[in-house]
Formats: sequence, C-alpha cells, structure tokens
Amino acid sequence: MSLHSQVVAIEWRQQTLHLLDQRILPHQHQLVECHSAADAADAIRSMVVRGAPAIGITAAYGFALDALAGRDLDIAYQVLAESRPTAVNLFWALERMAALTNANGQQLLAEARRIHEEDIQANLTMGQWGSELLGDQTTVYTHCNTGALATGGHGTALGVIRSAWADGKIRHVYAGETRPWLQGARLTAWELMQDGIPVSLVCDGAAAQLFRQGDTAWVIVGADRITANGDVANKIGTYSLAVLARHHGMKFMVVAPSTTFDLSLPSGADIPIEQRPMTEVTRLQGIQIAPDDCQAINPSFDVTPAGLIDAIVTERGVIHQPSVATVAALLATH
Amino acid sequence: MSLHSQVVAIEWRQQTLHLLDQRILPHQHQLVECHSAADAADAIRSMVVRGAPAIGITAAYGFALDALAGRDLDIAYQVLAESRPTAVNLFWALERMAALTNANGQQLLAEARRIHEEDIQANLTMGQWGSELLGDQTTVYTHCNTGALATGGHGTALGVIRSAWADGKIRHVYAGETRPWLQGARLTAWELMQDGIPVSLVCDGAAAQLFRQGDTAWVIVGADRITANGDVANKIGTYSLAVLARHHGMKFMVVAPSTTFDLSLPSGADIPIEQRPMTEVTRLQGIQIAPDDCQAINPSFDVTPAGLIDAIVTERGVIHQPSVATVAALLATH
Repeated sequence: MSLHSQVVAIEWRQQTLHLLDQRILPHQHQLVECHSAADAADAIRSMVVRGAPAIGITAAYGFALDALAGRDLDIAYQVLAESRPTAVNLFWALERMAALTNANGQQLLAEARRIHEEDIQANLTMGQWGSELLGDQTTVYTHCNTGALATGGHGTALGVIRSAWADGKIRHVYAGETRPWLQGARLTAWELMQDGIPVSLVCDGAAAQLFRQGDTAWVIVGADRITANGDVANKIGTYSLAVLARHHGMKFMVVAPSTTFDLSLPSGADIPIEQRPMTEVTRLQGIQIAPDDCQAINPSFDVTPAGLIDAIVTERGVIHQPSVATVAALLATH
Repeated sequence: MSLHSQVVAIEWRQQTLHLLDQRILPHQHQLVECHSAADAADAIRSMVVRGAPAIGITAAYGFALDALAGRDLDIAYQVLAESRPTAVNLFWALERMAALTNANGQQLLAEARRIHEEDIQANLTMGQWGSELLGDQTTVYTHCNTGALATGGHGTALGVIRSAWADGKIRHVYAGETRPWLQGARLTAWELMQDGIPVSLVCDGAAAQLFRQGDTAWVIVGADRITANGDVANKIGTYSLAVLARHHGMKFMVVAPSTTFDLSLPSGADIPIEQRPMTEVTRLQGIQIAPDDCQAINPSFDVTPAGLIDAIVTERGVIHQPSVATVAALLATH
C-alpha cells in the first residue's frame, strides 16, 4: 500500500501560499490564499490551518511572503508570533527563519520549503518507529486531527496509523470526535476515509465504555508542546484518554517531532493553556445549543503527565517511559 | 433560599395536562396541551417530555384524561404502553392506575396527582440525603439532565444540587454537555440558570483537566437501572466520569429512587447496552458534521461498576460503598 496520502493542506504555488480551509471540511473544499505574513497570521488565528506542525510551516511561508515583498520582517515576526500562544512549533519555525539575517526573499522561501519538506520526512520516519511498536491486527484510538491536515504531510499520530496500515498492522481506527471543534469528526474521519483506512467515530464521553470492552490496544495522539520531564500539552481531551487508557491496561503513545520539545520548561505546570471563547462550546457549527448567556469553560489544551505515557515517538527515535533523563538522553544524541 | 424550582415541565390545570416542549428548549418555551391518552402518548413518543419519572407521570395523567372523558380505558392503557416500550416507569405508573378498577375519573385523576406528588416528595427526600453528604462551598460536576424536566419536579441528581444550593453548600456547578444529545447544554444549564444556580458548561472531554485542578469535590449523576450488586447503567459518559473522579480522589454520587433497582440482574454485565443510530453522532440538529457515510459507534448507556461509586442516594436512605450486601440491606428495611 502507498504511504502517499490523498490529502494536501499546505501548498506553495504561483508565489502564493494556498491553505485548505479546514473550518469548512469535510463538506466544502476551498483554498485560502495568503499573500503576506498578516494573511498567514489571520489564517492561523482563525483556524483555517491548525495542528502545531502545520502552523509552524504556515508561519515560515508567511515570513517568506513578507520577505519576498520587501516588507518589515520584525513586524512579520511579531504578527505571526502573536497568532496562537500554545504551539511551540510556531516559535521554532519563526526563529529558524529570522536567524537567516542576511537572506533574501528567495533564500527565505527556500528555507520555508525546507521546513515543510523536513516535516514530511520526519513524519515518515516517526511513522516507521511508531508502527514498529504495534502488534499485528491492532485496534487504535486517536484524538483530534494529527494527519496530513495538521502537518506538512503524512501526519504525526495519524502518520503512525498510516504507516502501520501500510504495514498491514491496523484492524480498526476509532476517532474521538474532539469537542468543541470536532476535528475528529470533520477532519480525521475524512482523512482516513480518503485513504481507505477503516474508521469509526466516537463521542469523547464514550471512549471509556469502548476501552472497557478490551479490543483497543493503543491510544495514539500528537502533541503541541513537550516539557523537559516528558509532560505533554495537547488538544483538550487527551489527558482524559491517558487516564482512561492506564485504567484499562492499554498503551498510550505520543507522536511528535523533536521540535515539539521545549526544554526551557521543567514540567507541564509551566505551559500556558490557551482559553478560547465560550461560544465555541455554547454554539456548534453556528447553531446556538446552550441558553443565551450560558457560561462555559473552554481550555484548548490539557497536560498529560509523563507518568501516563508509554512512548513518545520522535524522528530521532522513541522515548520509552518519558522522564527528565530519558528525554535528555534522546535529545542529546544529536 | 426556596426549594421551589422555576422550572415546571408537567402541570395539570383547567382539566388539561400541560407539558413544556423539551424538544425546542432552551430557545423556545411552548406548552403542549394534552386532552386525551392519545395526546399524552404522542407527547411521550415525540419526546416533548423525556426522563423516566416524567414519562410515568405523563402516562398517569393521560390515563386519567380518558377516564374523565368516559373513554375506553383498555385502549388508553394500550396506547400509552406503546409510546416508549422501554421506559420501566411508564409501565409501573400505568399498572398502578389500572389497578384501581372501580375508580371514577376524579379518583383516577387524584391517583395521577398522587404519583406526581410522591415523585416530587421522593426527590426532595433524596435531595436532603444527598445534600448532607456535601461539605460547605462545594463545587460539583453533573452529567446529562436529571432535573425538574426529567421528573415530577426538583430532580434526582439535580435535585441534590438544588437542595444543597438551598442549604448554602454549592459554590459552583459544572454541567457536562453530554454528547451526542447535548442534554447538559440544552436542558441542565437552562434549568440551573432559571433558578439562579451558578453553572458553567463543559465539553465531556474537558472534565479530566477540570478535575485535575482540584476544585471539584463530587460528581453527581442519576441512573437508568441499578443491579443487585450496585452497578449503575446511566447515560453514556457516566462511566468515564467515575474513572476520572476516582483517579483524582473525588467522590462519586448516584441519585435514583428505589424503583430504579432491578434485583433480577446480578451485575451490570447483564444489562444490554443499546446501540442508537450513527446519525446521532454524525449529524447535529439536522446538520451533517462528519463525512457522508462515516461510520460511528453510539452506545446510549454505559455501566459504572459499584466499586467506583461512593454513595447511591435513594428516598429510603443512602447506600455507602454499594455491594450486594449494602444494596440488599437498604432495600430490605422497607
């Protein structure tokens, strides 16, 4: 089976960044064109594009767009850096671009393309490492969207599932719908169906009942930021799945490129958690479901402590039983 | 503070049964008038009224309506019994009405009113028992809707919260939105707001992150069926909350009248889990959210093992650490 996904979320052509508008998937396939860093920042903020690696790649192209147009790159940096607070890849990509202080627009564009291509290659490598951890005929559960839509291509957690499917190891995939944005329903189910991988959608609250049946062996998720001790910030609902997986004797895998690590933070307690508008909970697809003026809490991410994680898969290798020591050991080897 | 809720779902006045139409809450407040058993059966079947106790009370009034009009009571019984064949309270209420073979219309109306009033009184009693378990300034989390809308008035789990609020013990209520039907968002948040009880809506997947913060002391839920060993079948998502509550050192309370016990079943493994249509997950209020033809699993209930439950509150008293012995001990005392 081919490893090549049918899904392309980020494309550079005709001197323009084209983003597949993920807000209206799966029912409409529309491209949003970005001609500047400000356009790219708007696309990130408004969630045309989401997923930590995809955000970093989009920011790099956005920076290159302003460089090609001869605009002020300090302002470009600032506008892009302020678009989403939690994803560390955004800052990593921007710093890599800004470090090329003497580069011209074409050189910065080439750097953005390299960031994009390296991400795809890292995902293919992680896919292979992750697949090797799975047994034959494995049923897995995933959360949010970590696929070709969330990355430069192939995906992180969904990349492992894609690679394992190509290796003939996947029996079935359960996709958590991932309220409030429903990335699982709108994006992950769609991506897997595009590539012919068998998937069933699950309401987030039904995961525990499913796990209790005993068929599901692994929960496989991505990460937005990983701290020095192996704590993982990821989409809200991830921590719940980690607790439930441990309770049911299942395994829990995090798949993320090494750029996701933020060694400046000792633990997950130091990660800022983005609180998003209440209306994302009280409304659904534009429909008001809760009473007017109903209060809601809407943290965009949660933190899963390292102790609940069996493996963190990076493009550099696999961290088993993540801790300060095992994280440092892997990252120090390169 | 008054125990009297602003929310009235079932009301008898002017020789007519008035039902608050729960299908269009919280945005429209319309009453449906029932003048016959057939009207009441239609209201139950079409989900104008929902919640097992509320369905039983509605059926009793429907039976009385046909008695008052001199219609055939065998037909009335049959029409009502066929409205929602799985609701146990429906049969219990109808059998109690039909047992009064020599009663006239006014006497049967009086019996329906007694069934209604006894349900409210049981809820007030459970509210008091449950409230006594809570400390001062308690923050609680609830799931689905178990309030005045689901019962004759006051509610079961929400009745405990109402009583505890009247006792000055509630700091804040978190209401899980309860996918796929969103009873928490549409009904529970609305009920609590009507009575001025502070509530925040929470996506089901965000409960774990909330619990980890340490402010929430109790999860309080209702029950659809309780087996001889204290296992509890309730709305999907309940079991997840029980595992998460235990993991975070919180307490877990189930509130249900003694009629909810089914001692013919040894344990929750004997309760069949109803699978409802996939479209309840893939669509929302008529809008397709997942891809066309997307598969989904949609269990309507889950089973929480007795070992994860700290207290089952009934109108007869509280079962601490439910087990075959403690369940039998409470039910045998009456």
